[in-house]
Amino acid sequence: MLSREGCRARQRRLWNQLPGDIEWALLADPRSVVYFSNFMVNPLSFSGGERCWLLLERDGKTSLLGDNFSIRSASAEPYVDEEVVEKWYDHKHSVGNRDHALVAALKQIAPQLKERPGVVETEWMPSSILGVLGHSGFSRSEVSSSGKGNCGSDSAEPSPERIALGSVVRELRRQKEPDEIDLLKICMKATDAGHARAREIIKPGISEFEIYREVQNAALKAAGRPGLVYGDFRANNAGAPKAGGLPTDYVLQEQDIFILDYSVVLHGYRSDFTNAYAVGQPTADQQKIFDICLDCLNAGAAYLKAGVSAKSVYETVTQPMLNAGYPALGHHAGHGIGLGHPESPILVPESTDTLLAGDVVTLEPGMYIDGIGGIRIEHNYLITESGSEQLSNHEISLT
Amino acid sequence: MLSREGCRARQRRLWNQLPGDIEWALLADPRSVVYFSNFMVNPLSFSGGERCWLLLERDGKTSLLGDNFSIRSASAEPYVDEEVVEKWYDHKHSVGNRDHALVAALKQIAPQLKERPGVVETEWMPSSILGVLGHSGFSRSEVSSSGKGNCGSDSAEPSPERIALGSVVRELRRQKEPDEIDLLKICMKATDAGHARAREIIKPGISEFEIYREVQNAALKAAGRPGLVYGDFRANNAGAPKAGGLPTDYVLQEQDIFILDYSVVLHGYRSDFTNAYAVGQPTADQQKIFDICLDCLNAGAAYLKAGVSAKSVYETVTQPMLNAGYPALGHHAGHGIGLGHPESPILVPESTDTLLAGDVVTLEPGMYIDGIGGIRIEHNYLITESGSEQLSNHEISLT
Repeated sequence: MLSREGCRARQRRLWNQLPGDIEWALLADPRSVVYFSNFMVNPLSFSGGERCWLLLERDGKTSLLGDNFSIRSASAEPYVDEEVVEKWYDHKHSVGNRDHALVAALKQIAPQLKERPGVVETEWMPSSILGVLGHSGFSRSEVSSSGKGNCGSDSAEPSPERIALGSVVRELRRQKEPDEIDLLKICMKATDAGHARAREIIKPGISEFEIYREVQNAALKAAGRPGLVYGDFRANNAGAPKAGGLPTDYVLQEQDIFILDYSVVLHGYRSDFTNAYAVGQPTADQQKIFDICLDCLNAGAAYLKAGVSAKSVYETVTQPMLNAGYPALGHHAGHGIGLGHPESPILVPESTDTLLAGDVVTLEPGMYIDGIGGIRIEHNYLITESGSEQLSNHEISLT
Repeated sequence: MLSREGCRARQRRLWNQLPGDIEWALLADPRSVVYFSNFMVNPLSFSGGERCWLLLERDGKTSLLGDNFSIRSASAEPYVDEEVVEKWYDHKHSVGNRDHALVAALKQIAPQLKERPGVVETEWMPSSILGVLGHSGFSRSEVSSSGKGNCGSDSAEPSPERIALGSVVRELRRQKEPDEIDLLKICMKATDAGHARAREIIKPGISEFEIYREVQNAALKAAGRPGLVYGDFRANNAGAPKAGGLPTDYVLQEQDIFILDYSVVLHGYRSDFTNAYAVGQPTADQQKIFDICLDCLNAGAAYLKAGVSAKSVYETVTQPMLNAGYPALGHHAGHGIGLGHPESPILVPESTDTLLAGDVVTLEPGMYIDGIGGIRIEHNYLITESGSEQLSNHEISLT
């Protein structure tokens, strides 16, 4: 859960990024809403998938907009000054379209907004509100035309007057505040516990799906609350060294390698780290490539620091593979995590990103060799001015 | 998972509802996308919370639009003729705003749409696409103005030319096709298994959260795949007969009642059923109100049939409470379920809904009496022309 102070700090950072004449910002991406207000519709509730919106005003006022059922399905206490609630369901009458109730909530406050310049997170705010805010709502917000546009990357020049609010927020999200780090550490501890359980139970005869359920149970127990568990829960072997995704019914066999690369998501925030577990006794070649991956991870971890280029992190991580006579790492060396996965910075050969203090990143060297098997290991790190802090604390070891 | 034939049947029903000159429909609500195409971004994947869009054309052609990472995070095989993919991430370069990549996918096909009349699901299609489709995209789609509008209920008259596509789809969703029933039955069996596990473990000394994890494990094992588990996992007692929501660390005590009212969500579809479990030996009063609730449930179940009014179902369910000298049921007698929760028909005193063949509904009588405790029990039913089919098969019993 985020803190009131953290939400306020993030709001201040947003206002610092927006032109001085902008008086309000209307957020609709659920990740933006939780980021600035601590409100999230709990995905583990009957309102999972529903939406609420957040209005921020430059004077500091915050308002949460939603239907009465979605607002009460909060994952944690929202830090807002006002709730603009539209009654959708009262246990006495039939219901209309729940999405229209949300728009009706916006109509309640539209008159306060229409005369003042503001900006809408158009990436998520539905087009059903087209007429609600009038000219002031959209004149400053970036929208796409059918011409060659500013999509796919942020490199094209937007009109100077238009603000892509979603992109502004995504950039802010990279540099985590202390409350976000605290929440991420809870995710990390839960994920550590799931790895510890995996180490206890992985052996020939257990299925991938049994491992998933055991890991989930252990991780949530450590988290102390329900949450989402996703990732790669797959075995590989010398004949088929690459496998990813959710578990199947496959039953583990001697000399398989089980790659557990998974996330625990609590209140929108997530961990993402990996170990490769030998099933039974590993072969010498499996241990050899595991040790190379460990060299890669350690080299990368020692190199992390605010100001270094993402590209050079990739190069540092892959170097031990090259030194050992293997090809370069075939996927990213890592990426940012937080409310999304993956997100910037992206640690790849042609990245133009630079690490920032407050980034939380993964490093995840992997090798997948025909005739040997697949290995991947991963830690998560908070980038600091002087280096990094390792946030994950699971045991990285093949056996 | 849905079937190709089921998706086609639902598409045909949609075209039958739309004016004959409409040539294409662009869906953006994730529930609409899975409903017509079997495509859903798996909420248990790193793309959870991302979106893809679905284009349906009157000649039967279907196209899925998305960024390359979201499309590959499918919960099951999509049944579409074409995938319009915008590359967002290639493991080599930095990434831009993922939401902009989605809009760029739409730009790829916008020229095919602009000259032909079509309709957009404006309730979910973001306003960032404002200029992409041009006049033809929005001239037939309902949008809201700031005046007193058509929100909150569907009773106000829309302009005759405008189509609220989201409302059309919601109405279609009530009458389930056979593939939807098959999927719901998988959810039901999983939920049955969780209830069976709850019956084994509920006793003084176990915590609500331990019960949650055991129920989740048993339900997912029966489902054979990961899924979402949510609902009420709470104990109540004579002094505090009402409690709802996700589990806490509360440890169950003698003469508590544990209400397990929960859902298993697989591929967007869900069960929703309940039993009240005595913790230790129940009191005579607890058993008495449990038996009244059982009479309510049985009365309602016998009454269910296509064509009866939702209001009369409520009255039928509540009658045994009134007969026994208690107040009428204080919440709904039940509601529709499927891709949403709750959804129409709503079984309440002033409902204007009528049951339709193909509706899947819950009946959930409950009594919460100071000095005794809270009871709620619930089954799920498929409404048929001749009556109903009970889909849930858990044991409803206090002890």
